[in-house]
Amino acid sequence: MTHKVAILGASGYTGAELVRLIAQHPNIEIAALSADRKAGMTMAEVFPHLRHMDLPVLCKIDEIDFAGIDLCFCALPHKTSQDVIKALPKDLKIVDLSADFRLRDPAEYEKWYGNPHAALEQQEEAVYGLTEFYREEIKSARLVAGTGCNAATGQFALRPLIEAGVIDLDEIILDLKCAVSGAGRSLKENLLHAELSEGYNAYAIGGTHRHLGEFDQEFSKIAGRPVKVQFTPHLLPVNRGILATVYVKGDAQAIHAAFAKAYADEPFIELLPFGEAPSTHHVRGSNFCHIGVAQDRIAGRAIVFAALDNLTKGSSGQALQNANLMLGENETEGLMMAPLFP
Amino acid sequence: MTHKVAILGASGYTGAELVRLIAQHPNIEIAALSADRKAGMTMAEVFPHLRHMDLPVLCKIDEIDFAGIDLCFCALPHKTSQDVIKALPKDLKIVDLSADFRLRDPAEYEKWYGNPHAALEQQEEAVYGLTEFYREEIKSARLVAGTGCNAATGQFALRPLIEAGVIDLDEIILDLKCAVSGAGRSLKENLLHAELSEGYNAYAIGGTHRHLGEFDQEFSKIAGRPVKVQFTPHLLPVNRGILATVYVKGDAQAIHAAFAKAYADEPFIELLPFGEAPSTHHVRGSNFCHIGVAQDRIAGRAIVFAALDNLTKGSSGQALQNANLMLGENETEGLMMAPLFP
Amino acid sequence: MTHKVAILGASGYTGAELVRLIAQHPNIEIAALSADRKAGMTMAEVFPHLRHMDLPVLCKIDEIDFAGIDLCFCALPHKTSQDVIKALPKDLKIVDLSADFRLRDPAEYEKWYGNPHAALEQQEEAVYGLTEFYREEIKSARLVAGTGCNAATGQFALRPLIEAGVIDLDEIILDLKCAVSGAGRSLKENLLHAELSEGYNAYAIGGTHRHLGEFDQEFSKIAGRPVKVQFTPHLLPVNRGILATVYVKGDAQAIHAAFAKAYADEPFIELLPFGEAPSTHHVRGSNFCHIGVAQDRIAGRAIVFAALDNLTKGSSGQALQNANLMLGENETEGLMMAPLFP
Amino acid sequence: MTHKVAILGASGYTGAELVRLIAQHPNIEIAALSADRKAGMTMAEVFPHLRHMDLPVLCKIDEIDFAGIDLCFCALPHKTSQDVIKALPKDLKIVDLSADFRLRDPAEYEKWYGNPHAALEQQEEAVYGLTEFYREEIKSARLVAGTGCNAATGQFALRPLIEAGVIDLDEIILDLKCAVSGAGRSLKENLLHAELSEGYNAYAIGGTHRHLGEFDQEFSKIAGRPVKVQFTPHLLPVNRGILATVYVKGDAQAIHAAFAKAYADEPFIELLPFGEAPSTHHVRGSNFCHIGVAQDRIAGRAIVFAALDNLTKGSSGQALQNANLMLGENETEGLMMAPLFP
Repeated sequence: MTHKVAILGASGYTGAELVRLIAQHPNIEIAALSADRKAGMTMAEVFPHLRHMDLPVLCKIDEIDFAGIDLCFCALPHKTSQDVIKALPKDLKIVDLSADFRLRDPAEYEKWYGNPHAALEQQEEAVYGLTEFYREEIKSARLVAGTGCNAATGQFALRPLIEAGVIDLDEIILDLKCAVSGAGRSLKENLLHAELSEGYNAYAIGGTHRHLGEFDQEFSKIAGRPVKVQFTPHLLPVNRGILATVYVKGDAQAIHAAFAKAYADEPFIELLPFGEAPSTHHVRGSNFCHIGVAQDRIAGRAIVFAALDNLTKGSSGQALQNANLMLGENETEGLMMAPLFP
Repeated sequence: MTHKVAILGASGYTGAELVRLIAQHPNIEIAALSADRKAGMTMAEVFPHLRHMDLPVLCKIDEIDFAGIDLCFCALPHKTSQDVIKALPKDLKIVDLSADFRLRDPAEYEKWYGNPHAALEQQEEAVYGLTEFYREEIKSARLVAGTGCNAATGQFALRPLIEAGVIDLDEIILDLKCAVSGAGRSLKENLLHAELSEGYNAYAIGGTHRHLGEFDQEFSKIAGRPVKVQFTPHLLPVNRGILATVYVKGDAQAIHAAFAKAYADEPFIELLPFGEAPSTHHVRGSNFCHIGVAQDRIAGRAIVFAALDNLTKGSSGQALQNANLMLGENETEGLMMAPLFP
Repeated sequence: MTHKVAILGASGYTGAELVRLIAQHPNIEIAALSADRKAGMTMAEVFPHLRHMDLPVLCKIDEIDFAGIDLCFCALPHKTSQDVIKALPKDLKIVDLSADFRLRDPAEYEKWYGNPHAALEQQEEAVYGLTEFYREEIKSARLVAGTGCNAATGQFALRPLIEAGVIDLDEIILDLKCAVSGAGRSLKENLLHAELSEGYNAYAIGGTHRHLGEFDQEFSKIAGRPVKVQFTPHLLPVNRGILATVYVKGDAQAIHAAFAKAYADEPFIELLPFGEAPSTHHVRGSNFCHIGVAQDRIAGRAIVFAALDNLTKGSSGQALQNANLMLGENETEGLMMAPLFP
Repeated sequence: MTHKVAILGASGYTGAELVRLIAQHPNIEIAALSADRKAGMTMAEVFPHLRHMDLPVLCKIDEIDFAGIDLCFCALPHKTSQDVIKALPKDLKIVDLSADFRLRDPAEYEKWYGNPHAALEQQEEAVYGLTEFYREEIKSARLVAGTGCNAATGQFALRPLIEAGVIDLDEIILDLKCAVSGAGRSLKENLLHAELSEGYNAYAIGGTHRHLGEFDQEFSKIAGRPVKVQFTPHLLPVNRGILATVYVKGDAQAIHAAFAKAYADEPFIELLPFGEAPSTHHVRGSNFCHIGVAQDRIAGRAIVFAALDNLTKGSSGQALQNANLMLGENETEGLMMAPLFP
């Protein structure tokens, strides 16, 4: 049986990545693609790398007949997303890739995003989309909120450790390095090739990055007490890939064991042998997450690494993984392609 | 029915690319992987991006039992390839990715490669592997010689024009820009990141690049008279992608029409609207070739562009496309993945 | 004696490059920096790499007292430049880096730039700024029009050959590869890191690039008859550097000899030994231009290469070189720094 | 007065960088260049970007007449350096860029480098070359040991804080990101463009990087008690630049004040306004180090950033700075060039 899906916001990178992935899926058909400012254009005009595909012409959202749609991917900007989703049919299955439905507490949402939430009803029903940890809820969810790409990476590196109680919850430092596609296709000076390539820097320093809202919510929930991590993102001159270097206090072997147990049956999480560090080179374009653990020379301290592709496992791949569950498909369908290297 | 294949020389980039592609193929199973100097290692050690796959341990060639192998991909260096293939079972289907069996005339081989050919019998039976132009021969071939990646690009841009008689055969200039993975995984100073990135240059200038042997052979054969092109390759600081900018004399509209006719039914060749130029960004990691034609401001002169991924359409993708034909599979099986962008 | 200069349009790349170069000049002092939309900001805010320098705060043009200025660099966008320069004091020495005063014939200007010229009087007095070929005129000029960066590269590769009569004037093909900084600091989608890196493509194809106006003007003037070249620029994923690959018909040794003669005493032009190709890696950040000549395998055909840094020799370095002549300074003052490699 | 210098190991990146810098120095002349395996070649053959310079032909070390040399830069590999320096004239001024004379304690040297030190006498007299903190000793030193590039970056970020007693000495985490040129011109697979570009990873994890020897020595010396930091280096796909992100416990304002005081008169250290983060883009090719301080959202925790160019301030620029002091020159001579951006 073929499921018909719509992708709203198909002219951005996560939209294009969804199309790339779904092209490999035997049971999903793209029935509609929206892009308000580019309505009327073909995908080949907006993304020439999809030129060979037979795809619907880009349209406006209100031109879509959602009656024939089984599931809708919403790849719109934050804030826009809540307005749009509020107006969609109440029984339409939705995977949202924006930040709008990630935070459970409206006050937290307003604190991190600066505006009151405009779709409180939908926010309440939304399930957090980190598949490996919300699998059962996602299967029966109507609305799934995809995680932030940085937030996903940090959580893969920390959730099993908080769960297992093997690290000091007050001493967690997340030094994160992200690729530029995480910033989307927006025209900003610091995203220009001439500004970004050949160098790197931290940004959103001092605990101001919005994905901290997700870390706070999820880690505190697991721990049953407030957990606040330190988090410094860095912008790197590559197009895809996030590497989290996480400094924790705890026994490195116990940490490795906690991962081994938690991820034993996960199809997309690869735990490296003890003492090895992953590389973003080796997850590029794929839905895999590689995790490594090392013992520091100082006893009782360990370093955890997690690497994934921000556009795939960190966003559109995760979205398809969730859609598979919501549609009753095999969770890995369309997602087992190997990374592109070199 | 599942076909069992062996990949000889699996520790190089074209070997890894074959594994990546075959991983998507429903009817091919990798039964053996060889890499002489790395025998005994796992693919995960040599190529960590393939860590999630269940693959045979790397072995030496003579450890492979070819009785159970339906087809053998040979991704060995030039010269080694002819020695190895000469010793393989005479009824084993082989797709060779090296340069060893591309040239029909042993004298031409010796002229361009500097040594007498050591496997003349096999050379004689080999079929040239540019699928779109040798499809029928390949279907019944035992040994197919994959083309050079530059040679493939240039031929996609020129064969239909020579065939159709729409260009001046004595005035063809091929200015070609190639990515670094075409040079393989070899340790050479000019391939270091610090030497190669942030700049570019021509190499093998003045008509000395070995792929000229293929151009001469193929273009002269089509034309029924000697055709010699000018060919200048340039090395660019990217990992994948070849762009050929071809300067020809002829009517640009007739040229575009000749492409339209020649490639009308080709699944992997995309002809752009008249006046548009392709980009290597849009074929990356895929088996597609994008072709564009523009009219110069000087009457009677046209510029033809061809873009493809040297590791995929230029090498391992082409090899799988040929293997599909040799094994009775659908030609496009395992090869329809969309390019990776960004 | 210290010369006081103003730089108009200091918030763009060519403005910043002028500041970098002048910082090394013993006899030039930067007295004023303008940037209309960023007036009131410091250069450290706009260009943090200049943080260590003691520079004037950015101001609006009309806040500058030109009475104390010996020479004004105008690094404004095309079209704006002619309006601004028309209003500047009539005796102020000016080096313009825009395209506005490069073309002698107002009709040619309008043809290539799409609007009638608004400062015909200044256009008439302007001297074309390719120092090596207009040295004497520049010494006594009031207004010098800096060349286009592509135009400069092509002319270094062709002027001595046209002058010496050693090539066929009807068969010149300029295949040019340029870095992204040539497009300036403007917010365009195709200049984003995610769009530009890891690939390359041609643009302005078919003889539509504006620098053709300069080629036509200059080459025809030298030849004493109309000369039209073919010119295809390509955009490459690097920040600095232009490589011109020029296909000509003529004797390669005679071509090399013509360069040797023409550039024997030039401090910034380096002619490579016959048969060697230059690389943009080796001119990066410098005012040097490297030139190479190779004989093609087809008799009577040669390939000429020219490499330079578009921001330095192609723009701001050339501007300082001209300013030195106009101010009676040594032509090479402030310009002999070695390229940055790696 | 002109000082004559020799550069031993001139065919590596730090050797070439020394030549680039000295080219701008009014009072230093390069009298000899050695490169054992490339003896007899010109620098233009080994480093074409230095083609315009009039430089001595590369020779073997024993061909140099040290009688006429005022100072010798030793840019040889670790281990080789101690053997060579031991054999040089006892009164020759030397700036060593290798790791051989950085550690005061021979046992520490052997621990980190794996072999007993072969030049103990010279090791004893060597002065540690971090100019800003050993200025007086360097002025009268005969042998100065240049610091490691990572070690320099970490020390700029931490010495004033340890000195001022404003941070917890047991809770220092140094997450460091380095460019590839720090690994030199050696032929290693992981330094190939195809392996390194488009991704990043940590290396020497778990407190195993040799530069920890320098941190331990220097920080413990300042503190008057053992200080052990955590240090994780990452390899990034750029050619120049190190960014240290340092997590400390202490009052962020007091930390900023400590830097302001310590670096008030330093010509090459730029302290950014409180709350701003530096970027390696803005120090590229220069001798400057940019430092930033931010308050974390968790009270009592701060993040310190230091950015410099590993080949300049981290190695060859530092070496020239030291040579200036040793030769009685102005410390900043030849080193005030602005960074190259973009």
